Amino acid sequence: MPAPTPPPISRVIETCLYAEDLDAAERFYHDILRLPLAAREAGRHVFFRCGECMLLIFNPRSTAREETHVGGDLIPLHGALGAGHVAFAVTREALPRWQAHLRQAQIPIESHVTWPNGAESLYFRDPAGNSVELVMPELWRDLAD
Amino acid sequence: MPAPTPPPISRVIETCLYAEDLDAAERFYHDILRLPLAAREAGRHVFFRCGECMLLIFNPRSTAREETHVGGDLIPLHGALGAGHVAFAVTREALPRWQAHLRQAQIPIESHVTWPNGAESLYFRDPAGNSVELVMPELWRDLAD
Repeated sequence: MPAPTPPPISRVIETCLYAEDLDAAERFYHDILRLPLAAREAGRHVFFRCGECMLLIFNPRSTAREETHVGGDLIPLHGALGAGHVAFAVTREALPRWQAHLRQAQIPIESHVTWPNGAESLYFRDPAGNSVELVMPELWRDLAD
Repeated sequence: MPAPTPPPISRVIETCLYAEDLDAAERFYHDILRLPLAAREAGRHVFFRCGECMLLIFNPRSTAREETHVGGDLIPLHGALGAGHVAFAVTREALPRWQAHLRQAQIPIESHVTWPNGAESLYFRDPAGNSVELVMPELWRDLAD
């Protein structure tokens, strides 16, 4: 007998990026982007809280190779190389304030995109080369499902 | 004069994974995980809605190499190789229903973790090898900021 359909998944709770230099990642995401630090393990990871979601930065040299266990249960290996991407929602009012803040922190803006529906994005890089975006949430609100 | 501190970032709006076979990714995230399809461009990307967040799956062979523009503005290159990771929040009541659903879909559970605070996670792989987790949100609720 087929199992009944489970309830829909409606929330991403962990979004991940990879960085070998976790200290640099912490300076960037905590000191510049001002995300609250949630946990860190030297050489392995640094975790940040972002509202209801967690931003997890892993060192792929550790997490792609070294098996870890919690209470005997395996934490599966993962770890990517190359530029990942994450976007944070920022209101139309906040975007120019973030732009000024990034300028002051000497973070170059790689691109400032105006989307067809009028939403705007700022793109810049974290120290590991990941592409970070601040985007007005109406970008996605208008997209047909 | 220093710019005033911008308002806090409180929301991840795009979380990304990479997959070369976007059709397989669509079957997995849409047909099995039942995320609503939001957009797709053959060979480049397939996007899903997950509540307030977007799950974006990109083909790194396209997005890491081929510059695209929107209205003359550059969309920066990104694209990673190797297993990424994402976690979706699932309640304690829903987790066993998802476990049964995955079994029926013949998706092997790589690990079932019970965390020190009692929260549980199911780990499995998407067709590209990314590590996908369904986790009870209380895992992160108890973590000190």
